Amino acid sequence: MTTLDLIRTSPGPGPDHADRVAAAIEACAEAARACTQCADACLAEEGVADLRACIRLDADCADLCAATSRVLARSPAQDTALTQVVLQACVAVTRLCAEECESHAGMHRHCALCAETCRRAEEACKALLAAIV
Amino acid sequence: MTTLDLIRTSPGPGPDHADRVAAAIEACAEAARACTQCADACLAEEGVADLRACIRLDADCADLCAATSRVLARSPAQDTALTQVVLQACVAVTRLCAEECESHAGMHRHCALCAETCRRAEEACKALLAAIV
Amino acid sequence: MTTLDLIRTSPGPGPDHADRVAAAIEACAEAARACTQCADACLAEEGVADLRACIRLDADCADLCAATSRVLARSPAQDTALTQVVLQACVAVTRLCAEECESHAGMHRHCALCAETCRRAEEACKALLAAIV
Amino acid sequence: MTTLDLIRTSPGPGPDHADRVAAAIEACAEAARACTQCADACLAEEGVADLRACIRLDADCADLCAATSRVLARSPAQDTALTQVVLQACVAVTRLCAEECESHAGMHRHCALCAETCRRAEEACKALLAAIV
Repeated sequence: MTTLDLIRTSPGPGPDHADRVAAAIEACAEAARACTQCADACLAEEGVADLRACIRLDADCADLCAATSRVLARSPAQDTALTQVVLQACVAVTRLCAEECESHAGMHRHCALCAETCRRAEEACKALLAAIV
Repeated sequence: MTTLDLIRTSPGPGPDHADRVAAAIEACAEAARACTQCADACLAEEGVADLRACIRLDADCADLCAATSRVLARSPAQDTALTQVVLQACVAVTRLCAEECESHAGMHRHCALCAETCRRAEEACKALLAAIV
Repeated sequence: MTTLDLIRTSPGPGPDHADRVAAAIEACAEAARACTQCADACLAEEGVADLRACIRLDADCADLCAATSRVLARSPAQDTALTQVVLQACVAVTRLCAEECESHAGMHRHCALCAETCRRAEEACKALLAAIV
Repeated sequence: MTTLDLIRTSPGPGPDHADRVAAAIEACAEAARACTQCADACLAEEGVADLRACIRLDADCADLCAATSRVLARSPAQDTALTQVVLQACVAVTRLCAEECESHAGMHRHCALCAETCRRAEEACKALLAAIV
């Protein structure tokens, strides 16, 4: 809600696009947070050796989602081609991370929560992509 | 809520501390987001030349709040001395940024919203600092 | 050199690919640094109002190059499809930022330096892309 | 060198301070890179379970060094109190991370390299701190 308010109070394009952009900014920021926490929780698990791929993808997903969230926060007046390629990278990493976390969601609740958050970011980025292409 | 759930599902210290940590993680992440948006909105204003200090502080605050949020997301098992000095830096930058944004909150709604978000992060960091020292 | 040493000392894929990865990690990290400094220098210029697009692209480029550098630092054992889409995003943003900075390189020395650094990151990412596809 | 050139070409304070600031910007950026690589190399080690504290500190150190490097890149015209508290946090985290990595530098070459890089960042931040207080 603050995100949307801030978009609406900034001088820039019309409000019709604002909801989708705000949803993606927030979903990516939340995925970045969930992935950072999930990586740390995986690291604390007894079976950490089996969670290496998950920890790496969590870290990659956190970095890319954070960067995407920031780029989108500046995007109202930005280049569409740039937004598009950034969203494509974010869709790819959130999908990969969600798939990895889902594969052991039954064993680790933090992976289940992280997977859900990544799926929401993936959907928000896809919705925005569909609207700008 | 996801933040707190994730803290609670990770193997680590007791739940009594979790609320304060989760509040600080979320408040810092939201301040990072608001500052990135406020910097961009300031840049789009006609009077951008008078908003240089605000844009710089917004950028510094976004970077430090984002880093603080990540460090706290890993902190449950971490060194208290490190958490303390990171929180002190975050309190300093959110206070400075809030003061700057408040000084032209009357003219720019994005600055008013950003100032509020920074104050919430400052308070959350102070509350956590008080609990760990 | 430290970057390459670190890649070579980590358990992972063979050394033949290491030079290209290390070059891209370093070139992206340097572009992130140059863009952050160029954005700040643009902001301090008298003609800041004419440099809005440059400041925004500098900020986007800094964020994406930093994320790309980090993802590549973890990539030796990672998913090729992810590396590919991240490199594509980085090529796009470094090219756009270089073009923007080149357009006023004659007036601002920081833009000339930033453009060169972005072009090096673009080339390093393209070379790595060509090798993995 | 590019870092210093960029500082010197930006409108701001005198060149006498520029060498120390540029040294700290670069040392922190290199520490961020080394820590990201060291965390990933630790994760790939057979004895990953014994390297949990190292992986966490590497991640914290990478995030804080990256943020410090960015804040310093904007600092020429900035608030001294802010620079001070940020440098203090960075000194703390680079020292902790160096100590941790040194403790198993004999076993893991990536930890030895990371420790050296963290010590250089610690020294560069201390030198800058001493000059501004």
